Amino acid sequence: MARMSERAILPQRITVLSGGVGGARFLQGLQRLIQRTTATSQITVIANTGDDIWMHGLKVCPDLDTVMYTLGDGIDTDRGWGRKGETWHAKEELAAYGVQPDWFGLGDRDLATHLVRTQMLDAGYSLTDVTHALCRRWQPGVKLLPMTDDRVETHVVITDPDDGQDKAAHFQEYWIKHQAKVPAKAVVMIGADQAKPTQSVLEAISEADLILLPPSNPVVSVGAILAVPGIRDALLATKAPVAGISGIINGDHVRGMAKQLLEVISVECSAAGVAELYGARSRGGLLDAWLIDSSDSAAVNRISDAGIACQAVPLWMTDPDATADMCQAAIDLAHRNA
Amino acid sequence: MARMSERAILPQRITVLSGGVGGARFLQGLQRLIQRTTATSQITVIANTGDDIWMHGLKVCPDLDTVMYTLGDGIDTDRGWGRKGETWHAKEELAAYGVQPDWFGLGDRDLATHLVRTQMLDAGYSLTDVTHALCRRWQPGVKLLPMTDDRVETHVVITDPDDGQDKAAHFQEYWIKHQAKVPAKAVVMIGADQAKPTQSVLEAISEADLILLPPSNPVVSVGAILAVPGIRDALLATKAPVAGISGIINGDHVRGMAKQLLEVISVECSAAGVAELYGARSRGGLLDAWLIDSSDSAAVNRISDAGIACQAVPLWMTDPDATADMCQAAIDLAHRNA
Repeated sequence: MARMSERAILPQRITVLSGGVGGARFLQGLQRLIQRTTATSQITVIANTGDDIWMHGLKVCPDLDTVMYTLGDGIDTDRGWGRKGETWHAKEELAAYGVQPDWFGLGDRDLATHLVRTQMLDAGYSLTDVTHALCRRWQPGVKLLPMTDDRVETHVVITDPDDGQDKAAHFQEYWIKHQAKVPAKAVVMIGADQAKPTQSVLEAISEADLILLPPSNPVVSVGAILAVPGIRDALLATKAPVAGISGIINGDHVRGMAKQLLEVISVECSAAGVAELYGARSRGGLLDAWLIDSSDSAAVNRISDAGIACQAVPLWMTDPDATADMCQAAIDLAHRNA
Repeated sequence: MARMSERAILPQRITVLSGGVGGARFLQGLQRLIQRTTATSQITVIANTGDDIWMHGLKVCPDLDTVMYTLGDGIDTDRGWGRKGETWHAKEELAAYGVQPDWFGLGDRDLATHLVRTQMLDAGYSLTDVTHALCRRWQPGVKLLPMTDDRVETHVVITDPDDGQDKAAHFQEYWIKHQAKVPAKAVVMIGADQAKPTQSVLEAISEADLILLPPSNPVVSVGAILAVPGIRDALLATKAPVAGISGIINGDHVRGMAKQLLEVISVECSAAGVAELYGARSRGGLLDAWLIDSSDSAAVNRISDAGIACQAVPLWMTDPDATADMCQAAIDLAHRNA
């Protein structure tokens, strides 16, 4: 009986605003839910490209690739990023040549993706077209869209431990090289003010039956997507309900560096704090519904009082089935309060 | 006593016009000769870049790299090209993406060289500068110069086995994809007419005490170098004697596809045929001296009659010491007849 009721309420067109590892695992759960309910729902993913970086002359799109590899069964499941069966010989040799940066995890298999992408971009294709072409191989089972075809790069203003000077470091430098352990003062989406969402992105929002914000980083993943002018307005305008899942559990991120970056933007690192950052739709914000972890159930009233339908359920994405249950709860909550 | 006499006649500045595998092995022998005679000779290598190719957006310079890796102890000695300890994961993945060409041997370690080179070229450095930078790592013990900083690409007009049509195929396609087994009609050095030798190349010829033509391919290796306007004139003008070593032994190439390509340009595939192709210096050609294999000793008179000092000695480069003996013979022959 549970399965039948699940089927009845799965929306047809689901659009997800995703970062990398957390978003990809969330999407695996959503696909599992669709599969086990034998629904015909179609998923469109609007992926963060603010983490993108030019590395040794190649265009690297970590979040697009993490989603593509994860859903296409090419991911290293232990690391959560990069290719399974990966080797690091090109990286070793680049280091032997003494070229910088030497801290980025550029695997030999992964390199092929960046070579194909870079060559297609050089030939004049858009990142949207390139991503579509790469996905023909990986068949991720979702329509995967970069948030924009324009260059947007998330930078974090840090005090460089090497020289004590403040500088705007590319997000990858902050996260991979410094492991988010250096003091951060600001987050800046360079190029965002000049960027435009693609028509595909705008349609994925306006034509959706449901929008989901997975437990991705609210500052540099979902936050970067929202920084592209026009995307927030499209979310405010769509008829689809918007439901989010907290990536903060018990006052800390599950993975990544959201805690540090929420502090930079002066937002309380809690399930409620992030809900209030996104804001209630009824009050000019984004969220109709917000799922928090069972351990944070004390925050349900605060979030509800902020105008956002809230429920506490287990949020640990321990496996696709657990994640599917979480997705079902988010969908149910959104539909009950749409 | 032999060692002392060797030392007495080693020239100080030796310039070698080199192709890939054969040229690199020749250079190993020349270095061995210098080492065992404790001479202070300096070697400058003018390397063929007509084999260069853009591959998946990266600039690949097979002959420069073969010389650099061989003399820098990075070569796969079994294959004779590419890096030792090489893996092929990026190549596997490129094939999985279905991108062409899929027949080129692009190793993971090798890729790093092409990434560094391409990025430096994109930044505006000349190929000469880039090669110098790459050699800082490899320390090949020679001054390694591309024949030109301009783009020259050797093409072979073939009848394409896929569609029966004639087409100008890049040399790499002819050699690697078709293994020089398809009918060839012409060899064309595309861009050569517009190319210029660098000042470093011209000086390496004009200031040399000896010029050596190793047993590299006379059509597409040494031939491509000679196709750059100005290089042949510089060789004609230099005071240094010019000695060559036949890459043809007993009517066939030792390695490669010289036999096929000599046929294309209607030159007899023999030690004497190649000597006559280069021509005698005294008669407007390039050679003062020409070393042929012992098995071809019957051709000594014919070559001498053509105005080129000729001697038959063992030419098989079985190891660096055998090759050093061969180099010594070439140097001796050149000096006796300078």
